[in-house]
Amino acid sequence: MGRLTARRPVLTVTLESDAARTRRRPDTLAVEEPLEIRVGGEPLAVTMRTPGHDVELAAGFLVSEAVIAHGGQFRSAIHCGGPGTGAGATGATENTYNVLDVALAAGVALPAADAARRFYTTSSCGVCGKASIDAVETVSAHDVAGDPLEVDAAFLLSLPDRLRDEQAVFTKTGGLHAAALFDGASGELLVAREDVGRHNAVDKVVGWAVLADRLPLSGTVLQVSGRASFELVQKAAMAGIPVLSAVSAPSSLAVELAEARGLTLAGFVRGSSLNVYTGPQRVRVPGAD
Amino acid sequence: MGRLTARRPVLTVTLESDAARTRRRPDTLAVEEPLEIRVGGEPLAVTMRTPGHDVELAAGFLVSEAVIAHGGQFRSAIHCGGPGTGAGATGATENTYNVLDVALAAGVALPAADAARRFYTTSSCGVCGKASIDAVETVSAHDVAGDPLEVDAAFLLSLPDRLRDEQAVFTKTGGLHAAALFDGASGELLVAREDVGRHNAVDKVVGWAVLADRLPLSGTVLQVSGRASFELVQKAAMAGIPVLSAVSAPSSLAVELAEARGLTLAGFVRGSSLNVYTGPQRVRVPGAD
Repeated sequence: MGRLTARRPVLTVTLESDAARTRRRPDTLAVEEPLEIRVGGEPLAVTMRTPGHDVELAAGFLVSEAVIAHGGQFRSAIHCGGPGTGAGATGATENTYNVLDVALAAGVALPAADAARRFYTTSSCGVCGKASIDAVETVSAHDVAGDPLEVDAAFLLSLPDRLRDEQAVFTKTGGLHAAALFDGASGELLVAREDVGRHNAVDKVVGWAVLADRLPLSGTVLQVSGRASFELVQKAAMAGIPVLSAVSAPSSLAVELAEARGLTLAGFVRGSSLNVYTGPQRVRVPGAD
Repeated sequence: MGRLTARRPVLTVTLESDAARTRRRPDTLAVEEPLEIRVGGEPLAVTMRTPGHDVELAAGFLVSEAVIAHGGQFRSAIHCGGPGTGAGATGATENTYNVLDVALAAGVALPAADAARRFYTTSSCGVCGKASIDAVETVSAHDVAGDPLEVDAAFLLSLPDRLRDEQAVFTKTGGLHAAALFDGASGELLVAREDVGRHNAVDKVVGWAVLADRLPLSGTVLQVSGRASFELVQKAAMAGIPVLSAVSAPSSLAVELAEARGLTLAGFVRGSSLNVYTGPQRVRVPGAD
């Protein structure tokens, strides 16, 4: 487990009617640190992430990037010595837990080491490293369009609160995204993860499923804390998740990709109402046609 | 100008005490589309962005990536024919306005075409394309630490509302980040930009300054709508902006980088109070020591 939060002195300034008040106090921040993901010793990607669940993060990232599609293709991962963080850090042999080397199963093709397939993802970034538009879309090994899952609208409406209940760190820092996976039939929470990057939170959830050998994630619902972008729809599709539900707005391309892949995309899932942008056949509404 | 919003049919489900109501209506979405940035004809990066101000976006991106540091180094940019968006789009000669070719001034080194320096940035991603941690930090040509700017705390507290006033699209879609640049001495709004990606909004602001030959942006304050991550601090530092103010939380690494670069970083700038994480000498508090 990595550090999820860090303490840091802060000067709080409060302006009152005719005066100002300043207070020095320690503040709790969400930790953001780089993780270099290597495959077979070769650097593949750097992501700015919240430490913790790094193996899941790497496994989910490899699913998102179409390197693996099943748990059996991921053999192991170890943190290894590598460069530290921050200006001037060297420590070539020091283990900073910021470099993770993944071993794939025998026979799994290593990602091509060409320029168009290397990555640096920031704390709010998803799939990175492509130099041309043609390289952006990935093709999923799993069919989502044919997933017969149906869920009640009331179930979807309950998910943001259930996700929030899992967000221990957000409450402290106001600074973390979260993603949680639910079984669509039983309603059970399968896993929830937090990160400074929403794409990382999703990769951690998918990576959890890789390590549990549960891919494809048929019959599940992925709830995310923020908005739904192209990258999140793509990650859901790559993992075989048929329903993506977001607390906030989707982008135009998120809707287009969800439509093309046959995903159900819900947005503005708040209070007593939600918007279904694509795949409405999976959302049961009592009393409606 | 690109399309900032798109209309899309949506099914809104509202659960009431004992019944459910469904309504089909058109919804307004923030547009997200890929932009391929080329330099001298060579693909350099793909970013998922909201169309519009693409030349600024490319110019700002090149500043963030340390390719250019002054307006004179950016000569011109044109949209050119290229791949369309969406599954199966071809249209090799069709101008989709999603490929932009930048010409740099004579003598400016083209970015090295090695694997560690190519980019694909998503709608919420900043600086992309590095395969190893060493490649993440960029070195700014501009000194921020020595900037003597001082601003009133009350001025900083006024900025989120002034930014929101500029956010025409957010009001419609709930889906856009924004960034605005203010003159720290006069308080004047210099430029405001919106995008599905917060890093893009900042790149557009910085690119505006490139095209106006105003780099470095000494004496200015950058206000952003969301949180402050490592990437945003880095972009501010690369453009010579001494004060970065965010409506929400900073990450740990954002604070560390701001400290190392001598930036003033304010967060949770809301209502009558704000947090100063680094560089408090630039924040004047009436009546305080």
